[in-house]
Amino acid sequence: MSEKGKLIVISGPSGAGKSTVVNRAIEGRKDVCFSTSVTTRSPRPGEVDGREYFFVDFERFREMVEKDELLEHAEYVANRYGTPRFYVEQRLNEGMNVLLDIEVQGARQVRKKMPEAILIFIAPPSLEELERRLRGRATDTEQAIEGRLIRARQEFQEADFYDYLIVNDDVEKAAAKLTAIIEAEHCRFSDWANWLRSN
Amino acid sequence: MSEKGKLIVISGPSGAGKSTVVNRAIEGRKDVCFSTSVTTRSPRPGEVDGREYFFVDFERFREMVEKDELLEHAEYVANRYGTPRFYVEQRLNEGMNVLLDIEVQGARQVRKKMPEAILIFIAPPSLEELERRLRGRATDTEQAIEGRLIRARQEFQEADFYDYLIVNDDVEKAAAKLTAIIEAEHCRFSDWANWLRSN
Repeated sequence: MSEKGKLIVISGPSGAGKSTVVNRAIEGRKDVCFSTSVTTRSPRPGEVDGREYFFVDFERFREMVEKDELLEHAEYVANRYGTPRFYVEQRLNEGMNVLLDIEVQGARQVRKKMPEAILIFIAPPSLEELERRLRGRATDTEQAIEGRLIRARQEFQEADFYDYLIVNDDVEKAAAKLTAIIEAEHCRFSDWANWLRSN
Repeated sequence: MSEKGKLIVISGPSGAGKSTVVNRAIEGRKDVCFSTSVTTRSPRPGEVDGREYFFVDFERFREMVEKDELLEHAEYVANRYGTPRFYVEQRLNEGMNVLLDIEVQGARQVRKKMPEAILIFIAPPSLEELERRLRGRATDTEQAIEGRLIRARQEFQEADFYDYLIVNDDVEKAAAKLTAIIEAEHCRFSDWANWLRSN
């Protein structure tokens, strides 16, 4: 493949149906992959270094941050997680579209370090519907649901720098929109230069 | 329909297969229409004012230019042609995606007057292929073909402000790309404000 891939950042609150939409959209596609994160947490049984995660110690993680080797990083339950720039670049150069499923704060870091990344926010049709879905799952305590709703509202307010919004009122339609965005972005003017050079 | 439509400008050299691609893409779609131009030329038998064109005299055309009532205008064979802003706005507000098939100079005017317009350039796979297609049609004189090729090369050079490039090496694929671009543009962040307002 000669054409470079696109880095696609996907965010959205828990309950928006993000994973379902993304998995439906990339089903059977060989030109899309998820990025592999770096983490300081220990591998769980069956996890392979470089497959589920790149496992590193805190010392190495700190070094990666200092040397600007991460496109974004965050802390979660006393461990650190990040997206390795080198790995992403490599996949993009191979022509792969690389997906990052990260939160709004991480997306903001990516936008700064790789402005050509495509930022997509997947939202539920409304906050009422999000609440209904979260309660329907019946996996969270009342307190956890309240927390998720407050967080979702916050995320929406902060996400004004995203390129695209997909409202997930129907998984098939939302997946088709994601597919259309990837296709459209490959027609972007940036590839123009290549055309001109070859003519 | 509550969502506003998009103004979609399509350009590309004669022989790029522009009309075929566009017609294939909008086949059966009720949310896409072509704009109706204003012209100073006389109606031909069967042409209806407001359907093929809005027919006006030179005096009225000049007035439209002066009053900034046209999104773009050009001269062709001693007559003037333009895109009426009022008509386009009306269709957009009805939720229609409005197509404009115009040249690069016109597209530049539209970009200035309506920056949110989506500019798409449809190109042949190469200038060699364009030449082959033009010769294959056998409708033009050698001189006309030379002229078209020079013009095409010029247009490519000038079209660096377009948003999208669709290389038409396969009509079905090119039409799918156009469809994807329209779909993706409807997920643009600009519609975000509506979502936030309703939540």
